Amino acid sequence: MRVRIAELPQWVDQTVTVSGWVWHWRSSGRIAFAEVRDGTGVVQCVVRAAAGPRDAGELRLPLETAVTVQGRVRRDARAPGGVELEVASLEVVGASDSSYPLQPKSHGIDFLLDWRHLWVRSPRQAAILRLRAEVVRAIRGFLDGAGFVAVDPPILTPSAAEGTTTLFAVDYFGQPAYLSQSGQLYLEALAMALGRVYAFGPTFRAERSKTRRHLTEFWMVEPEMAFCRFEENLAWQERLITAVVEHVLSHCASELAQLGRDLTRLEQVRPPFPRLTYDEAIRLLEAQGFAIAWGEDLGAREEQALASLSDRPLFLTHFPTAQKAFYMQPDPERPEVVLAADLLAPEGYGEIIGGSERIADLPLLRRRMMETGLDPEAEAYRWYLDLRRWGSVPHSGFGLGLERTVAWLGGLEHVREASAFPRMLYRLRP
Amino acid sequence: MRVRIAELPQWVDQTVTVSGWVWHWRSSGRIAFAEVRDGTGVVQCVVRAAAGPRDAGELRLPLETAVTVQGRVRRDARAPGGVELEVASLEVVGASDSSYPLQPKSHGIDFLLDWRHLWVRSPRQAAILRLRAEVVRAIRGFLDGAGFVAVDPPILTPSAAEGTTTLFAVDYFGQPAYLSQSGQLYLEALAMALGRVYAFGPTFRAERSKTRRHLTEFWMVEPEMAFCRFEENLAWQERLITAVVEHVLSHCASELAQLGRDLTRLEQVRPPFPRLTYDEAIRLLEAQGFAIAWGEDLGAREEQALASLSDRPLFLTHFPTAQKAFYMQPDPERPEVVLAADLLAPEGYGEIIGGSERIADLPLLRRRMMETGLDPEAEAYRWYLDLRRWGSVPHSGFGLGLERTVAWLGGLEHVREASAFPRMLYRLRP
Repeated sequence: MRVRIAELPQWVDQTVTVSGWVWHWRSSGRIAFAEVRDGTGVVQCVVRAAAGPRDAGELRLPLETAVTVQGRVRRDARAPGGVELEVASLEVVGASDSSYPLQPKSHGIDFLLDWRHLWVRSPRQAAILRLRAEVVRAIRGFLDGAGFVAVDPPILTPSAAEGTTTLFAVDYFGQPAYLSQSGQLYLEALAMALGRVYAFGPTFRAERSKTRRHLTEFWMVEPEMAFCRFEENLAWQERLITAVVEHVLSHCASELAQLGRDLTRLEQVRPPFPRLTYDEAIRLLEAQGFAIAWGEDLGAREEQALASLSDRPLFLTHFPTAQKAFYMQPDPERPEVVLAADLLAPEGYGEIIGGSERIADLPLLRRRMMETGLDPEAEAYRWYLDLRRWGSVPHSGFGLGLERTVAWLGGLEHVREASAFPRMLYRLRP
Repeated sequence: MRVRIAELPQWVDQTVTVSGWVWHWRSSGRIAFAEVRDGTGVVQCVVRAAAGPRDAGELRLPLETAVTVQGRVRRDARAPGGVELEVASLEVVGASDSSYPLQPKSHGIDFLLDWRHLWVRSPRQAAILRLRAEVVRAIRGFLDGAGFVAVDPPILTPSAAEGTTTLFAVDYFGQPAYLSQSGQLYLEALAMALGRVYAFGPTFRAERSKTRRHLTEFWMVEPEMAFCRFEENLAWQERLITAVVEHVLSHCASELAQLGRDLTRLEQVRPPFPRLTYDEAIRLLEAQGFAIAWGEDLGAREEQALASLSDRPLFLTHFPTAQKAFYMQPDPERPEVVLAADLLAPEGYGEIIGGSERIADLPLLRRRMMETGLDPEAEAYRWYLDLRRWGSVPHSGFGLGLERTVAWLGGLEHVREASAFPRMLYRLRP
């Protein structure tokens, strides 16, 4: 019976076949111990002389040799997973040799990224990719279960909603086109058709940033809800993040252990999440000696100082209208601030969600466009304004960055490890 | 209590609030009948004079007026969903008027696509988008449940694996880059790390095709499995398609009814799927009078003639090696054909899956590259060849086109309806 390593505990005392790659090899006399990985886990295989073509103690299989082993599953409390494999036969499926570039020693990050196609085989990187897959599953599971319809807004878009400076240009059969930075405007149209929708796909920002929180290509989940105002929008975010953290804690124990994650920090993530208005944030920062005035953008240092006030994710709300995008609803009681919020992850991970109520009123939307230097008569915006012409309703939405969320949950230093093949300012390969 | 229309049958004899858009309005004396849609369904609302600001019989709300109605849920066997709403109060949330462009009459396809941002509100289009979301959920549910790890290969790629003629070019900070046509090569690297993986994301083909089966931007699910040969690859495809059809039949009854889909055709989709080798296909086509010789590509007409032989999806296997991509494993017993298969949907929907065993042997892969005019020494292929240098194993995978699959399952005439905002040769808007 061919079995995957993660399933071995169900096969104790039975004979099974496992296929995988040698991750570690150690010989001792006439016996060898091979750690074999198959993507679902790692198992120690005990190879005695009789099993191999030669004396097992002398047989040495290089790192990454692909093997198929047959043997008996034995309970062993000391082994990871609680079992080991007593090998009866071992077949080399694909050879390896000492030229394998990623030997178990310390390598620089550029070297590792150059060899990303092999680096993903390391237990840490594989654990991060499995964690990412579970985060995706948790997000989709929560939203599907809450009656959101998964939709896919276009990646190729004819025009730039907010200027072209951070857009990647594409030659579309001779016409200019741009890669989508956000599906939001299209999602607003789809929310009017389907009620609650979400997009979950790649997003592109041609930013010349070289921070540990920026990728030029990243995945974002963007829920958008018709008949939904600011407060309900925050409630959805709180519920989603809580569900994702619970899912990860119950489904990713071995991945989080592999990453050395402090679980107590994740266990603290329970609703309600604290809130701070931009006004309060400015006062707090001033009291801490930051040189910042009302109306100025909060930078990474300011965000970090604010997030450190809480063990839980923190909502920052009611930003100055002048700072923010044209589609955000100004607070009716105080139009100099918008009904928008960022969610800052704890432990210095910074913003993982940005969201807002959208303007439903056509004259107000047109005025805000003009105030932000956009032409409401431009053909590019016609369809977006149409959504306010017939049956316009209050609606809200938000965008959650997947790699930043995985970096936070996994305790990673840099978002690049949360992407299978990260794309950055100076990194388009492999 | 605010309730979504799909949930109304659980609230019989209770008073609820529903928000949505007027889809149809009919008055009769002092009573009006409004069909209201909210994205989850449609409910008939009975509005009597007392509920509205004026005599209900004279009150006329235009198509797409957004309303919030409060009322009592009444069982009514004749109504869709088995209930109607006896309205106690009605509030207009967002006005509409007779200028709404998509009045209930027949429009041409270009007109409808120009107004796609509103066209998605029509019951048929909304049903297609909900069907699509359920197909996505079925595919992910099946693969997640079978131990596949969801991964996201890059969209921005530095080079063209098979020539640039059908690639969209992107300006990547001054360097040339291309939008991915398939994540396959990257998925092969990830399968060596994680065992079984799948990507599910957008894919781009700059093809100047104007058929009912082509989009320039479409979504594809691409499973890739290590230690998996040709036969097992076909078995995964058969299981996946069977699971998706079962899911759609049990979760999309109202959508399929809305689309007028003949369910008996879908109920016939049960394993095993019949198979035809390319050799057999050529003999059959010759017997039917087609002018086709061994070695020639099968066109849409030929595919249709073959698919019509079966009520179930049909595997077409063992294509001439010379026709196919460099990475496909030649049949060891007959190297002029490859261990590849296309899956043709019944009812003339054509190819929905293409897949193959991949070449694991480095010298053979290099030889096949040279035979197909590719340079195995090129920097662009170095990392891909590396996968055969250390621990290479048999592996296979396939790609399923989402829009074609939705078109088949929903009985659509053209794939464009299966995309929220379709992109075609002459269509980049809205």
